[in-house]
Amino acid sequence: MINKLVEKIKKTGAPIVVGLDPMMNFVPEHIKAAAFEAKGETLEGAAEAIWLYNKEIIDKTYDLIPAVKPQIAMYEQFGVPGLVAFQKTVEYCKEKDLVVIGDIKRGDIGSTSAAYATAHLGKVKVGNTMCEGFKEDFVTVNPYLGTDGVQPFIDVCKEEKKGLFILVKTSNPSSGEFQDRLIDGRPLYEHVGEKVAQWGEQLMGDSYSYVGAVVGATYPEMGKVLRKIMPKSFILVPGYGAQGGQGKDLVHFFNEDGLGAIVNSSRGIIAAYKNEQYAKFGAENFGDASRQAVLDMIADIDGALKQAK
Amino acid sequence: MINKLVEKIKKTGAPIVVGLDPMMNFVPEHIKAAAFEAKGETLEGAAEAIWLYNKEIIDKTYDLIPAVKPQIAMYEQFGVPGLVAFQKTVEYCKEKDLVVIGDIKRGDIGSTSAAYATAHLGKVKVGNTMCEGFKEDFVTVNPYLGTDGVQPFIDVCKEEKKGLFILVKTSNPSSGEFQDRLIDGRPLYEHVGEKVAQWGEQLMGDSYSYVGAVVGATYPEMGKVLRKIMPKSFILVPGYGAQGGQGKDLVHFFNEDGLGAIVNSSRGIIAAYKNEQYAKFGAENFGDASRQAVLDMIADIDGALKQAK
Repeated sequence: MINKLVEKIKKTGAPIVVGLDPMMNFVPEHIKAAAFEAKGETLEGAAEAIWLYNKEIIDKTYDLIPAVKPQIAMYEQFGVPGLVAFQKTVEYCKEKDLVVIGDIKRGDIGSTSAAYATAHLGKVKVGNTMCEGFKEDFVTVNPYLGTDGVQPFIDVCKEEKKGLFILVKTSNPSSGEFQDRLIDGRPLYEHVGEKVAQWGEQLMGDSYSYVGAVVGATYPEMGKVLRKIMPKSFILVPGYGAQGGQGKDLVHFFNEDGLGAIVNSSRGIIAAYKNEQYAKFGAENFGDASRQAVLDMIADIDGALKQAK
Repeated sequence: MINKLVEKIKKTGAPIVVGLDPMMNFVPEHIKAAAFEAKGETLEGAAEAIWLYNKEIIDKTYDLIPAVKPQIAMYEQFGVPGLVAFQKTVEYCKEKDLVVIGDIKRGDIGSTSAAYATAHLGKVKVGNTMCEGFKEDFVTVNPYLGTDGVQPFIDVCKEEKKGLFILVKTSNPSSGEFQDRLIDGRPLYEHVGEKVAQWGEQLMGDSYSYVGAVVGATYPEMGKVLRKIMPKSFILVPGYGAQGGQGKDLVHFFNEDGLGAIVNSSRGIIAAYKNEQYAKFGAENFGDASRQAVLDMIADIDGALKQAK
């Protein structure tokens, strides 16, 4: 699956991922009205609204991008119907041949991590039948519990040819509270990065490992160091756009081959129609606004990478 | 909700929680046969099997215990139908007046953490209607992302009078890889424990905070130190029984008032009928085996606490 991601990035020329994080206040009124008309002001109505919203954005952007990253929390908040919408979104993206990164940030130990890995990347045996749950291609994983927590995910990835992005340095302001604390003179996130590199050695694709890392766009200097510590790990970079990261901050996350990073934007793309810059599209044409925002993001990153050469 | 937990612990004399982590190989054959007969060897069939299994265990133990801790991964592995079984389990336990600790180990940032908190502890607005998702009373939270990640959970807890258990020192062998690393001469888990105490000050119940901690039974010496660092935090203690923790290891997790800790056992209770000690009950009577295992666990912990006085 890492090979497919690399291939699709090369083909699209777009090392970007669209974060499908449908907050209800992003969803245009006409979509909400249609969904509530059909299913009421219920969890089912909310789930229908985010599904209709996602579908339009996917339809208008899928040919430009290699991957999407649905944030499961935004679906889980609508309970079981929300998770049905998550599943529909994953399946629809796969129909469109997009690589799907489930942003689930799960992490537990032993058989429990194995169960999460099965839920999202693998197959579960019921009687004599193998069944599938949520069917993403990659998931994000929290490393706080150590190797016991991560290895079960790696084991499922080996079997299924799927991949992981491990949280190393997150994009939020207080990520430093624990992640930046010095251990033997070096911050915790560097130690985690070293583990990611080690874990990744078990599971190499053609040029990159199936085990990647999450490093926030908001910390470009740390990205530079981590790029060296994990040369074979793809870095998933959140924090572009709404959180303050810009194209020029991102160059350090890439290797000299122009690969090795994939930059996420969520609200900057999916709620583009709410930004002044794209307001001319209007709420009715929110999908076209998202398409333009994707094109602009590709140009911004491409320009920054060319300038850095 | 922390007050209710304390009150129920006093009433039952049982500072224990039953971990409802239904692995398929724990479920007796006759339950599986009935479920697959009704719903096929499908995710729905698996979900029906774990629901029937849970119901019997709850019916046979609810009068002895204050709380249950369903591990969501074990349901999530069966996709949407598994999460329907999770929800049914939570609701059924609440009908039985049990405190429900959702072992979800979620953790993200800002609006994403808020969405998880809403999903499991709060209410979500759909149009003008407030809806509820999974309805637990407490959830477990991963602290790796820092205050940004935890505060949204605390905010929802304030509103809903619900609570958290933050991962501090987990019970698994490799928990030390990051959690034990020294920062300014003290292990990371102590720094996390200090934050838990600080976070908890915002949200005090009558005698304990709504913000508790997870500290594994397998590390009693660390439990002793953490008990002092977080005097007002309830400690949820996994790792008893199957993972090797014993009653005598647990005394340090309690305060002198005999409160402050709640000890989890999962497979030791729910799969008791598979242990030699309870084999005489037979698979048909697995619920009775679970009941006996609960009684024995209460006696073990009670004995250890009395001996320590």
